[in-house]
Amino acid sequence: MSLNTFGHLFRVTTWGESHGPALGATVDGCPPGVPIDEAALQHWLDRRKPGQNRYTTQRREPDAVRILSGVFEGQTTGTPVQLMIENADQRSKDYGEIAEKFRPGHADITYWQKYGIRDYRGGGRSSARETAARVAAGGLARAALVELAPDLAITGYMVRMGPREIDRGRLDLDEVGRNPFWCPDAAAAEDWASYLDDLRKSGDSVGAVIEVTARGVPAGLGAPVYGKLDTDLAAACMSINAVKGVEIGEGMAAATLRGSENADEITMGPDGPEYSSNHAGGILGGISTGQDIVLRFAVKPTSSILTPRRTITKSGEETEIVTKGRHDPCVGIRAVPVGEAMVACVLLDHLLLHRGQVGSNRGAIG
Amino acid sequence: MSLNTFGHLFRVTTWGESHGPALGATVDGCPPGVPIDEAALQHWLDRRKPGQNRYTTQRREPDAVRILSGVFEGQTTGTPVQLMIENADQRSKDYGEIAEKFRPGHADITYWQKYGIRDYRGGGRSSARETAARVAAGGLARAALVELAPDLAITGYMVRMGPREIDRGRLDLDEVGRNPFWCPDAAAAEDWASYLDDLRKSGDSVGAVIEVTARGVPAGLGAPVYGKLDTDLAAACMSINAVKGVEIGEGMAAATLRGSENADEITMGPDGPEYSSNHAGGILGGISTGQDIVLRFAVKPTSSILTPRRTITKSGEETEIVTKGRHDPCVGIRAVPVGEAMVACVLLDHLLLHRGQVGSNRGAIG
Amino acid sequence: MSLNTFGHLFRVTTWGESHGPALGATVDGCPPGVPIDEAALQHWLDRRKPGQNRYTTQRREPDAVRILSGVFEGQTTGTPVQLMIENADQRSKDYGEIAEKFRPGHADITYWQKYGIRDYRGGGRSSARETAARVAAGGLARAALVELAPDLAITGYMVRMGPREIDRGRLDLDEVGRNPFWCPDAAAAEDWASYLDDLRKSGDSVGAVIEVTARGVPAGLGAPVYGKLDTDLAAACMSINAVKGVEIGEGMAAATLRGSENADEITMGPDGPEYSSNHAGGILGGISTGQDIVLRFAVKPTSSILTPRRTITKSGEETEIVTKGRHDPCVGIRAVPVGEAMVACVLLDHLLLHRGQVGSNRGAIG
Amino acid sequence: MSLNTFGHLFRVTTWGESHGPALGATVDGCPPGVPIDEAALQHWLDRRKPGQNRYTTQRREPDAVRILSGVFEGQTTGTPVQLMIENADQRSKDYGEIAEKFRPGHADITYWQKYGIRDYRGGGRSSARETAARVAAGGLARAALVELAPDLAITGYMVRMGPREIDRGRLDLDEVGRNPFWCPDAAAAEDWASYLDDLRKSGDSVGAVIEVTARGVPAGLGAPVYGKLDTDLAAACMSINAVKGVEIGEGMAAATLRGSENADEITMGPDGPEYSSNHAGGILGGISTGQDIVLRFAVKPTSSILTPRRTITKSGEETEIVTKGRHDPCVGIRAVPVGEAMVACVLLDHLLLHRGQVGSNRGAIG
Repeated sequence: MSLNTFGHLFRVTTWGESHGPALGATVDGCPPGVPIDEAALQHWLDRRKPGQNRYTTQRREPDAVRILSGVFEGQTTGTPVQLMIENADQRSKDYGEIAEKFRPGHADITYWQKYGIRDYRGGGRSSARETAARVAAGGLARAALVELAPDLAITGYMVRMGPREIDRGRLDLDEVGRNPFWCPDAAAAEDWASYLDDLRKSGDSVGAVIEVTARGVPAGLGAPVYGKLDTDLAAACMSINAVKGVEIGEGMAAATLRGSENADEITMGPDGPEYSSNHAGGILGGISTGQDIVLRFAVKPTSSILTPRRTITKSGEETEIVTKGRHDPCVGIRAVPVGEAMVACVLLDHLLLHRGQVGSNRGAIG
Repeated sequence: MSLNTFGHLFRVTTWGESHGPALGATVDGCPPGVPIDEAALQHWLDRRKPGQNRYTTQRREPDAVRILSGVFEGQTTGTPVQLMIENADQRSKDYGEIAEKFRPGHADITYWQKYGIRDYRGGGRSSARETAARVAAGGLARAALVELAPDLAITGYMVRMGPREIDRGRLDLDEVGRNPFWCPDAAAAEDWASYLDDLRKSGDSVGAVIEVTARGVPAGLGAPVYGKLDTDLAAACMSINAVKGVEIGEGMAAATLRGSENADEITMGPDGPEYSSNHAGGILGGISTGQDIVLRFAVKPTSSILTPRRTITKSGEETEIVTKGRHDPCVGIRAVPVGEAMVACVLLDHLLLHRGQVGSNRGAIG
Repeated sequence: MSLNTFGHLFRVTTWGESHGPALGATVDGCPPGVPIDEAALQHWLDRRKPGQNRYTTQRREPDAVRILSGVFEGQTTGTPVQLMIENADQRSKDYGEIAEKFRPGHADITYWQKYGIRDYRGGGRSSARETAARVAAGGLARAALVELAPDLAITGYMVRMGPREIDRGRLDLDEVGRNPFWCPDAAAAEDWASYLDDLRKSGDSVGAVIEVTARGVPAGLGAPVYGKLDTDLAAACMSINAVKGVEIGEGMAAATLRGSENADEITMGPDGPEYSSNHAGGILGGISTGQDIVLRFAVKPTSSILTPRRTITKSGEETEIVTKGRHDPCVGIRAVPVGEAMVACVLLDHLLLHRGQVGSNRGAIG
Repeated sequence: MSLNTFGHLFRVTTWGESHGPALGATVDGCPPGVPIDEAALQHWLDRRKPGQNRYTTQRREPDAVRILSGVFEGQTTGTPVQLMIENADQRSKDYGEIAEKFRPGHADITYWQKYGIRDYRGGGRSSARETAARVAAGGLARAALVELAPDLAITGYMVRMGPREIDRGRLDLDEVGRNPFWCPDAAAAEDWASYLDDLRKSGDSVGAVIEVTARGVPAGLGAPVYGKLDTDLAAACMSINAVKGVEIGEGMAAATLRGSENADEITMGPDGPEYSSNHAGGILGGISTGQDIVLRFAVKPTSSILTPRRTITKSGEETEIVTKGRHDPCVGIRAVPVGEAMVACVLLDHLLLHRGQVGSNRGAIG
């Protein structure tokens, strides 16, 4: 099975290692006629790019994306789109020690146990650099969505950094681009800045919760059972490095509610059904309702920290390790554009599926 | 795409509606030579069966499973296994009202918007009855796991009912089968009984959190990027009716931790690597470590309640609905065997993948 | 991988053995709103049914198909359609000898070598009975095509029986239903009747070539590279029992032609492009041209014959075998409806794919 | 669905156009620990490379392959292998005329009808250049087969050029590399040289039949129904540009035989089952017997010829076209290494599937 591939009709296969010559995404199934060029993709990649402020890894990567196929005279042709990003800053010398020692909390030991070989430089395939390819593919998905669902808007933002949460009463999506944390709460962003400065100086790291909202999603996307829209969104988010939990709508808190509290009542508005609330997060029975889709995912703290940690070597000897490379004190920050990209890919994929399987016969109401 | 199918090599396609003649699972990819018969599958189905106590729906279903193919003289042959469960108790008359009205919190409205037709009887395809087919398939997966990974043990249990959680200090897996809630904490089970009795009498319902633990999972199952073991587990759980959140290991709480707290340190034990803790839930970089796999999922309260709720009809008129059918006050109870079944399917699937792609060359340590 | 599944969006998984309780097809991805009932499917199954004349196996099977799911009030709902055919005439006693001996030309030995277990009764999974499930699924595909491509007509017929070919000058599709051979040449049909009578009496069997023509296929179905329409048609035909060769348009004879002979010239007709000839068989570069799709496949003679043949037993002893069961002297006859069914499934599948991926932007000419 | 992808576990996605910056293959599912480098792949690419003698296109392409990912210190790591070939000789000016006119026998018109946009330069995605990516991927498959099935040998050769066939009595695989036609019959090769010289001078082209033999294939590869080994081989061959027919073993001629002639009798040899003949081409019931796998495919004459042909323009006007580009008078010659590559990919894929699904329990004989 294509275990490095995601999607049903809009299929993204990412490839590449942290310190190899390049990495990228092979995208099959993009509709033809979508206007796209490298500058449009670069816009999204620049949002994820490392080294932009003191809160992210100081690795310097231009992350310049090249389109090698599938685009002709500024439009997609319906054939596979190859998106390649060359690795510029391959400071492999930083990573000598980890050839022999397994970093706790990293994939080093499991890759070794599975494959008996691993490209240890910078984590190889398990590096967060892989997500650059996702963001490139997500940029293409967004360009296709502009054509197919022009009202759709996808916004990601951080709602928690370690112990510090945003105040939902102050949530303002316009704030998201104004601080280095994609934080929708200006006061929280200030607080996080000092919190993270302290943490960074101590050589430690911290986790985060990212929320992604999609507005303007047509009703009817998804499927009843395994190919549910929420199944695919959950898989998409959980497939991102370091993610340990995924929630749709109320998420884990749905367990604490009673049925009389949780079910969103339906009324009839001028343009169709309206809902008294959105506990469901925009999805019922695996299919979109037309409300905002709201999901969250938790990113664990990066395990590359300056505190010495106990571990073992390939030959089974006990030892200690301090990961000295250039790392993110809160890798969740850079996960925001990645989460948006994954949501864009899933929504485009289900939009294409819906067009294929259901024609003009969807149920009108009223 | 096969949107009613789950799995890469061990592929389960469920089919059937709540009030049709039958439902079942078409299982392709089961290894040959697995001892199985209907009685062995029935054991698992009986755990999920409705009407067993006053806390689950009073629908009477024998849920008797028949093996129609793929088994010869008590063993699987490697060809597709068809598992069929006939619907015995089809009291369709209970469901007349919902032909016209959309039940809030149910898939009624989205199925209509997507397909323009729906089998409204008992929720049709979106009914929790579909999970009987999952449990049957999971029983087959467990039988195959007995052959391929005899030390593997999968146990599901409820850790939260609405606002009431278990006390982790009292967690005892031996308690799980001794109360109607699959609760591993005897004191909590007593508390839940009175809580749920009150709730049921009031015509309301409540959510739950289920935890599933898999012990004895070999290290090395999974894949680095999209086909990660945690991705597939998250998708499997999120595909269950009414699930709104999924967690691996620390789950959403991982966001609150610092790197120095979260990364499980590694030491060398007599039989290989050992870990000081299991924040990771047994999976690093998408691949199993050999520790217990620990996951949780949240089930929302069933939306079929006796409290009147506002809704609309197919023709767009506003109205109210009271769902009078036979329903579960805490549908999470019956989700426990379903969660176990999904975990069994995913683990078998990844075991088969691992055997195919990696031979004898996995990395030894020490 | 789902090795008993065919199709991208319209996915057919067949299941069942010759002498098990039942066999059938699980069809996922059928569009909603397609009018269908058991009688409509039975029409197609009756064309394939054994025992209808002296030229096919005398096994008596009603081949009555039941729809167990996915259809509500006479229309598909978009959920999986389960089509089940119970095995009525299971004369297992005919097959005792083959539990130990491998029949030459059959799958007996390879199933044993692969799986180490096989349901030997009537060939088990490798029996031509499996094709009844294909015909049922094909009936559903045809019903969907009536909705989505009303001008499309698929006709299969036999163009060769052993050494005897039809005369293309006498080809008349109206003749196809008037003789037991689906032969479009009345004179050939008479000749074949006496030829096959002689062959049957001698206990031998013979091969055949089936041609299937699809008229009214819209231009634009297919894909450029691996998912070419001809790739999927070739796979569909080669997957039928006993098929050893597949041709599109000129087929193998294309190798004997020069470029100046083979390329179909294009002119402009009142309704769009027209072609001076159809060497291509209606497909260029993997995509339909709008001309008739023409394909052929060769069915080998059934290997179940009354002539003694040398073989070995499971324990490796040399022996002889005479297959005394009820078999078809020319199994190609019953392959005609099967070929039609496979073509219907592939065309519907590609029609759905085309709708999903390409909208209103396909290229107009003129 | 991934329509530019081939394979179940060893998945090859090719990408790229004839005159874009590059083309290549993204290979997911290659086992880890396979020794490989660019030189080893180049060996196979050089066999397919254009411009090597006067019988193939004079386009000058180094076809130098680069490995961008998935290989570390000379071995595969189990992660996706990206194989990129840059397009060096992009003489786009040759192709101006075909921006407006559809070349008969080419995909120009169908791509336009499907997508409404096409990269017309050199045929874009439909160019035979795409097969360079297949050969690169096939080289990787061969390297993996050396590890997993060291006795396996795959040899392709041409058995027919237009009206001229080889003499089977003179077939000698040692001759294959000694002439520009991969012809296993030295006398035929001489004859073909003069035949093709004449044809080339006349500006015409001719078709060919390629045969591929695989020796040393283990018994047991394949699956009973849709995922049959012959199904996948047929699909693999039919997916190659310009292929119009595929045969396994006797192929289309199987239709002319009687059962008593066609079934290969089985005897017991010192190392297991032996067969009196190989009409089956090494596959019974979709599963390999351990005999040589023998398949053939027919390549139509290239449609790019110097003879003027009638066609239409995008705006629907009738016109004529002469294709003046650098083309192959017998494109079948370069299809030989492509056919070998496809067979290598399919066999590796089924070997991996077999390892995953069936363990040590395959049936021994004797």
